[in-house]
Amino acid sequence: MQYFCNNIFSSIPRQLSEELTETILRGENVKIERIISKGHTTPEGEWYDQDQDEWVLLLQGQAILAFEDSKTTNLVSGDYLYIPAHVRHRVEWTDPERDCIWLAVHINQP
Amino acid sequence: MQYFCNNIFSSIPRQLSEELTETILRGENVKIERIISKGHTTPEGEWYDQDQDEWVLLLQGQAILAFEDSKTTNLVSGDYLYIPAHVRHRVEWTDPERDCIWLAVHINQP
Repeated sequence: MQYFCNNIFSSIPRQLSEELTETILRGENVKIERIISKGHTTPEGEWYDQDQDEWVLLLQGQAILAFEDSKTTNLVSGDYLYIPAHVRHRVEWTDPERDCIWLAVHINQP
Repeated sequence: MQYFCNNIFSSIPRQLSEELTETILRGENVKIERIISKGHTTPEGEWYDQDQDEWVLLLQGQAILAFEDSKTTNLVSGDYLYIPAHVRHRVEWTDPERDCIWLAVHINQP
């Protein structure tokens, strides 16, 4: 068996008509995703309201997240956040000039 | 509540006499760590043999991992691996000239 998997910065499509979400690892308790956005945002008036906790790391690019019960948060490369389940949030802005690469870890808490 | 946490590339000590492991998130099913190494390796003849699955991403730097039942694996920035529980492995080499920043996600599978 060979344990090399992949590179998180590779195989990024040149054109992204929509945000791209790829599952890297899926287990019963955890799902790890790579998400690529480039100017994409959460549709006007919509909020993410997730059943799972999420830990998210912006690996590349810039973005602004909004939380229903808090201030907006500006993110730059390397910034990470913990978003508990059912904390309503949305992507307010992502850099339209450069791919935003997110690593999202979705966690089922018992 | 403010959801901004931290930056994964910040607060790196200038001197690292030993490898530095910091817990970013700890839950019942998942633990996320940042690990900084700079020339540090697993002691000669020792192997990691972990009870949990591990997903590891090299965010910065270069490293070589060895697996008891497989070839060694050269890693560069952005490379990620999935290491199932009890797959014996060791860090054979890390770049002594530059901080290696690892993100490790330890997962309890049911």
